[in-house]
Amino acid sequence: MEDHDLLLSFIREDAPFGDITSDAIISAAQCRAQVVTREEGIIAGIEEAVFLFRYFGITVHPMVTDGDSVRAGTVVLELAGPAQPILLVERTALNIMGRMSGIATRTRRCVLLLAQSGGECRIAATRKTAPGLRKLDKKAVEIGGGDPHRFSLSDGILIKDNHLALIRVDDAVRAAKRSTCYRKVEVEVTTPQDAVVAAGAGADILLLDNLTPGQVTAVVQALRDRGLIERLQIEVSGGITEENLLSYALPEVDLISAGMLTHSVKNFDIGLDIVPENPEQP
Amino acid sequence: MEDHDLLLSFIREDAPFGDITSDAIISAAQCRAQVVTREEGIIAGIEEAVFLFRYFGITVHPMVTDGDSVRAGTVVLELAGPAQPILLVERTALNIMGRMSGIATRTRRCVLLLAQSGGECRIAATRKTAPGLRKLDKKAVEIGGGDPHRFSLSDGILIKDNHLALIRVDDAVRAAKRSTCYRKVEVEVTTPQDAVVAAGAGADILLLDNLTPGQVTAVVQALRDRGLIERLQIEVSGGITEENLLSYALPEVDLISAGMLTHSVKNFDIGLDIVPENPEQP
Amino acid sequence: MEDHDLLLSFIREDAPFGDITSDAIISAAQCRAQVVTREEGIIAGIEEAVFLFRYFGITVHPMVTDGDSVRAGTVVLELAGPAQPILLVERTALNIMGRMSGIATRTRRCVLLLAQSGGECRIAATRKTAPGLRKLDKKAVEIGGGDPHRFSLSDGILIKDNHLALIRVDDAVRAAKRSTCYRKVEVEVTTPQDAVVAAGAGADILLLDNLTPGQVTAVVQALRDRGLIERLQIEVSGGITEENLLSYALPEVDLISAGMLTHSVKNFDIGLDIVPENPEQP
Amino acid sequence: MEDHDLLLSFIREDAPFGDITSDAIISAAQCRAQVVTREEGIIAGIEEAVFLFRYFGITVHPMVTDGDSVRAGTVVLELAGPAQPILLVERTALNIMGRMSGIATRTRRCVLLLAQSGGECRIAATRKTAPGLRKLDKKAVEIGGGDPHRFSLSDGILIKDNHLALIRVDDAVRAAKRSTCYRKVEVEVTTPQDAVVAAGAGADILLLDNLTPGQVTAVVQALRDRGLIERLQIEVSGGITEENLLSYALPEVDLISAGMLTHSVKNFDIGLDIVPENPEQP
Amino acid sequence: MEDHDLLLSFIREDAPFGDITSDAIISAAQCRAQVVTREEGIIAGIEEAVFLFRYFGITVHPMVTDGDSVRAGTVVLELAGPAQPILLVERTALNIMGRMSGIATRTRRCVLLLAQSGGECRIAATRKTAPGLRKLDKKAVEIGGGDPHRFSLSDGILIKDNHLALIRVDDAVRAAKRSTCYRKVEVEVTTPQDAVVAAGAGADILLLDNLTPGQVTAVVQALRDRGLIERLQIEVSGGITEENLLSYALPEVDLISAGMLTHSVKNFDIGLDIVPENPEQP
Amino acid sequence: MEDHDLLLSFIREDAPFGDITSDAIISAAQCRAQVVTREEGIIAGIEEAVFLFRYFGITVHPMVTDGDSVRAGTVVLELAGPAQPILLVERTALNIMGRMSGIATRTRRCVLLLAQSGGECRIAATRKTAPGLRKLDKKAVEIGGGDPHRFSLSDGILIKDNHLALIRVDDAVRAAKRSTCYRKVEVEVTTPQDAVVAAGAGADILLLDNLTPGQVTAVVQALRDRGLIERLQIEVSGGITEENLLSYALPEVDLISAGMLTHSVKNFDIGLDIVPENPEQP
Repeated sequence: MEDHDLLLSFIREDAPFGDITSDAIISAAQCRAQVVTREEGIIAGIEEAVFLFRYFGITVHPMVTDGDSVRAGTVVLELAGPAQPILLVERTALNIMGRMSGIATRTRRCVLLLAQSGGECRIAATRKTAPGLRKLDKKAVEIGGGDPHRFSLSDGILIKDNHLALIRVDDAVRAAKRSTCYRKVEVEVTTPQDAVVAAGAGADILLLDNLTPGQVTAVVQALRDRGLIERLQIEVSGGITEENLLSYALPEVDLISAGMLTHSVKNFDIGLDIVPENPEQP
Repeated sequence: MEDHDLLLSFIREDAPFGDITSDAIISAAQCRAQVVTREEGIIAGIEEAVFLFRYFGITVHPMVTDGDSVRAGTVVLELAGPAQPILLVERTALNIMGRMSGIATRTRRCVLLLAQSGGECRIAATRKTAPGLRKLDKKAVEIGGGDPHRFSLSDGILIKDNHLALIRVDDAVRAAKRSTCYRKVEVEVTTPQDAVVAAGAGADILLLDNLTPGQVTAVVQALRDRGLIERLQIEVSGGITEENLLSYALPEVDLISAGMLTHSVKNFDIGLDIVPENPEQP
Repeated sequence: MEDHDLLLSFIREDAPFGDITSDAIISAAQCRAQVVTREEGIIAGIEEAVFLFRYFGITVHPMVTDGDSVRAGTVVLELAGPAQPILLVERTALNIMGRMSGIATRTRRCVLLLAQSGGECRIAATRKTAPGLRKLDKKAVEIGGGDPHRFSLSDGILIKDNHLALIRVDDAVRAAKRSTCYRKVEVEVTTPQDAVVAAGAGADILLLDNLTPGQVTAVVQALRDRGLIERLQIEVSGGITEENLLSYALPEVDLISAGMLTHSVKNFDIGLDIVPENPEQP
Repeated sequence: MEDHDLLLSFIREDAPFGDITSDAIISAAQCRAQVVTREEGIIAGIEEAVFLFRYFGITVHPMVTDGDSVRAGTVVLELAGPAQPILLVERTALNIMGRMSGIATRTRRCVLLLAQSGGECRIAATRKTAPGLRKLDKKAVEIGGGDPHRFSLSDGILIKDNHLALIRVDDAVRAAKRSTCYRKVEVEVTTPQDAVVAAGAGADILLLDNLTPGQVTAVVQALRDRGLIERLQIEVSGGITEENLLSYALPEVDLISAGMLTHSVKNFDIGLDIVPENPEQP
Repeated sequence: MEDHDLLLSFIREDAPFGDITSDAIISAAQCRAQVVTREEGIIAGIEEAVFLFRYFGITVHPMVTDGDSVRAGTVVLELAGPAQPILLVERTALNIMGRMSGIATRTRRCVLLLAQSGGECRIAATRKTAPGLRKLDKKAVEIGGGDPHRFSLSDGILIKDNHLALIRVDDAVRAAKRSTCYRKVEVEVTTPQDAVVAAGAGADILLLDNLTPGQVTAVVQALRDRGLIERLQIEVSGGITEENLLSYALPEVDLISAGMLTHSVKNFDIGLDIVPENPEQP
Repeated sequence: MEDHDLLLSFIREDAPFGDITSDAIISAAQCRAQVVTREEGIIAGIEEAVFLFRYFGITVHPMVTDGDSVRAGTVVLELAGPAQPILLVERTALNIMGRMSGIATRTRRCVLLLAQSGGECRIAATRKTAPGLRKLDKKAVEIGGGDPHRFSLSDGILIKDNHLALIRVDDAVRAAKRSTCYRKVEVEVTTPQDAVVAAGAGADILLLDNLTPGQVTAVVQALRDRGLIERLQIEVSGGITEENLLSYALPEVDLISAGMLTHSVKNFDIGLDIVPENPEQP
């Protein structure tokens, strides 16, 4: 479900006192328009754009669905109605689609890369999203086929290095397990020894952060040696790029989480073209 | 002035029901912590981070100021207080600083590039910002030394191609001029002919969008030939990158606006490290 | 575009716990009603009233358009539907229309007065609006034919006397010009000397505040003498009333801004009359 | 208690993207400033202005209290601190004080006029306030010595002509009385007959709307004749001005309510003057 | 009128990042569903539930009206549409209906109990509502047939024991009466002496808090003896339960207010059942 | 961390236009006051009350901590300051403490009951909270020693009967497991057969809803027989009361969730008493 309040707040941000250009030069003109991709990728943000255009009284025909592969030049939305609200919504809708499609496109590339590894390992997002856009950023990751991972500090137990500066790993895991049988307990470890201790204390997921593939393998082996690997999930993170992704898709690694999916988005190029109503014909 | 409401909404987004990890494993522990850069660049978001940490009762000593050049390993904030609110604010503060510093760093690089051209040409942002982050994105551009350009549809007249699909350029410029003597009227043109018509109709700024440097030069020449260049500003945009930026810093070009400054942000790497209170001493 | 959130907040203000009178004495009665002017003037607020009545399920037929001249007794809206929401919205809609039409009516009188001067001089609003009603107040000025001027501190450079208590006028203008080539720089001056200095430093608009018509003429003459008047706009403000307005519509004066348009509004008298559904017929 | 959220929303309205003038030309300058009246009247809005200046880190010394009589030239607030937030808050604080003091000043004049009548009759506000400013407008009336009357549709039973188009006056009063023994029931009447019927049905307050003083007297006499006047309050409204106010301060009239107190506010003239920190000394 | 913003905020509370279960396992399935009571009582919250389901695109047929008596197994809403939004709204709608119907059911039982007393005494709510739910809690009391009493501190004068720790009862009543002729003045008294003093000072309603039925009778008698009882309302409160309610329905007692109506709600049991669309039948 | 915005919204709800009683009868009086329990139980809401009183300028000394056992007559907060804001905050603070302490008290009783069973079984809340109070209701459960369970639809996978009307249990579990390796998958089952199927498909938690203790035992036995019980959590719910709670604390049952903890709260009795400042006089 789109968050209508959030989406409308974006329009208010872009027009706190209205659209002074269109008010000055365009009266009640009607027009048609198309939202068209300028590059290939995975489209996202269609639901959000459709809501916004329709809210302002524009007739919208979506030609694709969130998650579809599109080529450059694909018409994703056909619009018709008064020109003023189309131009009012244009930039906000494109900004949403540009960011979400950028995230979805890169996520999908990671998904396809991991598929080459032949395993079940999935790509996951982190909490390194644009402030205020957590919901849309995570949705875009899911549209791309990734795992959204934790949405917030409220919905997953993840004991990180900064916690472990304050409490021993086994004490931390045990305290966390005591606090909930409802949620999995994930803990960041950096050595095979800590991994074994954390697993022994009852951790459900180990987060191997900023390790080399070789170090990841060593941790996994230590856990396998002690018969602990079966009931654990292994998550790898830290400096993940499209280039090094496959090197981390190691046996027993269930999840690779990558901040870059959402903190360093490359905008997906997409535009809106007004189609004059009555082009003169020869 | 920071928008406190906006900043606090980011905390609510990241902890709609509190921080269940810290609640489970850390009680009333006090600690010190440092926010440390992991790469070099221009720091931004300090004011916002300081506000957030202080709001939650943490003692903060900022060691740098927004806009400072920093190297990897620079301590930008010294923190002290209860561990729980430090960990509550951590990710939000880092996400803000990471995005804003990323924008400021790239903007500064563009500013320095343009300085090489020896002219007065400035780099400017566009409205292609992350939805909801217009104010912070523009502020980061200013911290980097760039021009924020229009903040919204309400604060500048800019007649674009989509308007010109509906109204002739000279009619548009004249209608806009009639609507205000208070604001400059900017209009997008793509040919020397249109540039001359727009300038003749009273445009104050011409936006040359998606032209080659050669085409820009041709438009400028046409304006110069007719004695129109003096009272005009020239803005160039469309596909601007750090690589091609200098090629557009042509004579008479006052402003180069680049969507990539804010729509394709590379996160600036920055972290928070808890410093244990009583490190064992030998 | 109306700001729906703002308009609905006015209803919540007027009925935080519902309408206890109608709840007590009127059940599901249906009725017709008319919104009728009680005096002549320029109508404004129609869009806002129509939105509110329709939001609460009432059928609305607007009989006039914002900006129309109306006489006393003109029916501006025909309403039909359940009586309870009509009475819920009544006062809020009338308060909006009363204030906006009051502003539009006085603005239009000023526009007509200035038209007598034969020049291009326009009447403009200031930021002296009712707090929270900036958007509606400015819209009403535009409906009346006036110039909205700055919407806020974010969308125009205006160096005022209080700035000049802190920085010299030429330094201020130069700093402002350096900060933007995108916006005009306006500066308040009170003497011919300052006017010449400000113009020489690059100011685009001079604001002559609290001068007599004679003093305005002297400033203009000083600027003309130095060949500076051509590329400048001249704005006059300070104690403007309908009575003295024409005396300031001097040659070269482009804009007369008047706080009274929005800070001392005379309400436009307008009412809502329930029309009993089944008047007995002979 | 001031509504801090509401007051801060006014700052956001006036600076959605910051104060671009002060940002461009004033850095970290410190200054003193004074808020000074430009005319005589009753001051109001001091609490609100003090909150806003203090919220933004400015030292404030209020020199008067809401409700004080002030002459032109009275310093009402002494301010000290950084110039930027002083200039950020200036216009909003002045707009609040200008409107509230305008309302308080006129209300006080009405209070003093009524005091001449020698009776207990009070001046009261209506719901004809600026949308969104109900609380501040009513507070200003109270500061001036008036009665705020109903705050909203939720807190008083008032059966008006539009209700009586749908239901007989006696039925309406009886239904209202049945709905509450906790609140008084007020009903609008226009004839002595209706007044007697309404009183007989149990009304607590009669509202005589748009009657001449003579008609008011006739209604009062009819009620007195039937021994009904004792337990009733009488409120008069409709077209009340400072000029005709005293003519309605008739025996048995308890309350005269006047929309003009809040719907047609004359702004109270008040300004803020920056005081340079280091005036040159000889 | 339902407060749409409030109702939608409940959905956001229950799904800050969407419904991850339905997203994972249900795609675009359509279904029918029924909201069915699991016990008998008075139904409330129908308007709110209808609004929420419809807002999310679900077809709703309400089978009952707020205030209706229902038995266990009564279908109160018939729903049809996509399964995802039905499941999104389910819990919020049931929580609203469960609480409101719980309040309405107990209120109605109190109303029926008081009807046995043969007098006019009414049951009333207090301000002891769930924070944030004042409006819905009071509405539920009204649906059950009770008196909502004060909605807030803004809409009724009630001088309580804590005021009387600071000011004498007669001074308090006189000050309150001076402040308004528009509202009744209610004052809490605990002895016949105070009751007489308060009535003599002009109180309109006496609140007898935490007295025994015998003490109430004594106060009433003291007032009757002095001829004060006629023009007064008497309200009783303090420790009211369904068990002792009738013992307080004494002559001259107009209102019995009970915090338990809203501060100790017993949820009304109600559920939502998905009805499979096309069960194959042989 | 308390949600300050939410807490302040409760004050606005209780005083949309201020506190008219205190405004009328109490000026600038200072006083001391105590918040005192009227019954024994577990105190909660102290953090929230402390925030609110301090926000309005009152000096607060908390005498107990959330989660403490208190007897009737325990002073939990000592207050000092101006009487007006104390009376403004009083009811809101008491409503919060009354509800939260009521929840915490009953939860603690359940915790102590379960402790008698000698096992590890915990009491848990559900999503059947008062709308808008999810965060406070869950916090109160945690203060009482219970498990908050899911906060919302966004933070836990729980496949319920209404899902299973649309999809087979094994398909549902498998789809849910595919969607996340990060979260546990819980599924409602009602028969031993379904329990075995769900466990076989990978479910992590089984919810046995509305079964008798005997039926629960049968399900557990069937899982034990197939060697599935070890890696599963078992949650029981449906009609849980303090009376039948212990009968469900069966071997292998990890969690008993009870809607009554939050949907049918019995208010904890607590009051605020103004302490006159200078009572001592001989």
